[in-house]
Amino acid sequence: MERRALIKNIAAGIVAGMAPSAAWAAGKKDEINSITELGRTILFQGDSITDAGRQRDASGPNHREGLGRGYVFHLAGMLLKDSPHKELELYNRGISGNKVFQLAERWGADCLDIKPDVLSILIGVNDFWHTLSNSYNGTAAVYERDFRKLLDNTMEKLPEVKIIIGEPFIVKGGTAITAQWYPAFKDYQEASFNIARDYNCAFVPYQAYFDQALEEAPAAFWCPDGVHPSIAGAALMAEAWYNTYRKI
Amino acid sequence: MERRALIKNIAAGIVAGMAPSAAWAAGKKDEINSITELGRTILFQGDSITDAGRQRDASGPNHREGLGRGYVFHLAGMLLKDSPHKELELYNRGISGNKVFQLAERWGADCLDIKPDVLSILIGVNDFWHTLSNSYNGTAAVYERDFRKLLDNTMEKLPEVKIIIGEPFIVKGGTAITAQWYPAFKDYQEASFNIARDYNCAFVPYQAYFDQALEEAPAAFWCPDGVHPSIAGAALMAEAWYNTYRKI
Repeated sequence: MERRALIKNIAAGIVAGMAPSAAWAAGKKDEINSITELGRTILFQGDSITDAGRQRDASGPNHREGLGRGYVFHLAGMLLKDSPHKELELYNRGISGNKVFQLAERWGADCLDIKPDVLSILIGVNDFWHTLSNSYNGTAAVYERDFRKLLDNTMEKLPEVKIIIGEPFIVKGGTAITAQWYPAFKDYQEASFNIARDYNCAFVPYQAYFDQALEEAPAAFWCPDGVHPSIAGAALMAEAWYNTYRKI
Repeated sequence: MERRALIKNIAAGIVAGMAPSAAWAAGKKDEINSITELGRTILFQGDSITDAGRQRDASGPNHREGLGRGYVFHLAGMLLKDSPHKELELYNRGISGNKVFQLAERWGADCLDIKPDVLSILIGVNDFWHTLSNSYNGTAAVYERDFRKLLDNTMEKLPEVKIIIGEPFIVKGGTAITAQWYPAFKDYQEASFNIARDYNCAFVPYQAYFDQALEEAPAAFWCPDGVHPSIAGAALMAEAWYNTYRKI
């Protein structure tokens, strides 16, 4: 299947390798009930997009300062409000600048010890970006290899965890997005997709959401530098993530 | 009409004194289009619930730190994401501890100079609370008189402004909510409602939303002290406000 067709199917809620749940075909109330079966602890992992200025020492769940000011915060409002029965516990452990190998370095304290029921990972933009700006030598193949190792380790230690992989994205027209990103960055996006497929993870097709959003307003509105979303872009990400989550 | 019946009608989207707009009867797309007719500058005024830890010197519109971490931030995500064409400019000028007379003291710089198209005011909980805790001598009558004066002044200087009044609320079971609040605080709520009716303002019936939410989870979940909402409570407020806004 072509990437374009795959993305289209994903955007329609059909995650590769996962049959759409019965809840997906039912109404919103049922969808929300199905969420409860996913368990109460949700961990958001990633780089600066996830971090979003969180207070690092506010490590407890559902901490207003600890969740940052990005998509995780918007999602926290939506998830908690919509599922008051669930006693959800949300953690943000994104760290600015991280590449996938840096997640691996802190995975014990920042993932395994938290024992999430749902683990959301958005990583990859720095794995490419830092090859342009920080003399980093990684490649898409290194990214993919390290990401697979991270998931192998995670699934071994947390066999019941549900994993949601967010597609790394760039927003065309953003000030940091030069011609060098095209088509090189696509390899990282395809790696993230292939990993989600092979590991039976849910997948959030952020790129499709931002591409569509660009028809409504320019990058300056959604994501000024093309990497770090504005409030509007973070809210769009929250919508995208929630749409995927509801259909697990 | 009894207060209970009034609230019921308000919750159904019929703001006293305002015919439901055609957009209200139409689909969401049309509702959002109608929002655009309200103008692009939206100012949120109030006390700590609005303030919500905002960075006071981040005074420009749509500033991630300047909007705080409360209902205004959740709303900013929703409003900006849903209306990318509108070039909305959102300001938060809530200040912790404020009573209505303190809004009046700073109204020039913190409202009139901003020239909002839409002005949202949530004020009143301190007008009562501080009579219990801070030796403040105000009454519901003083609150109502000062609130009306504030609106007279606002409408004189900004004759085109659309005003949304948020009902001050308390969440039963919150740690700060003693028996002394009942029924005394109701006088403040009724004053806010009467003012909204008399000045043809939209009205956000927060109390009804929280009362209903308490059927799902206790105050500790929505608003631990009964005054300052949690993330879930702030998201609930954002939903309530947006429902009112869409129907103006």
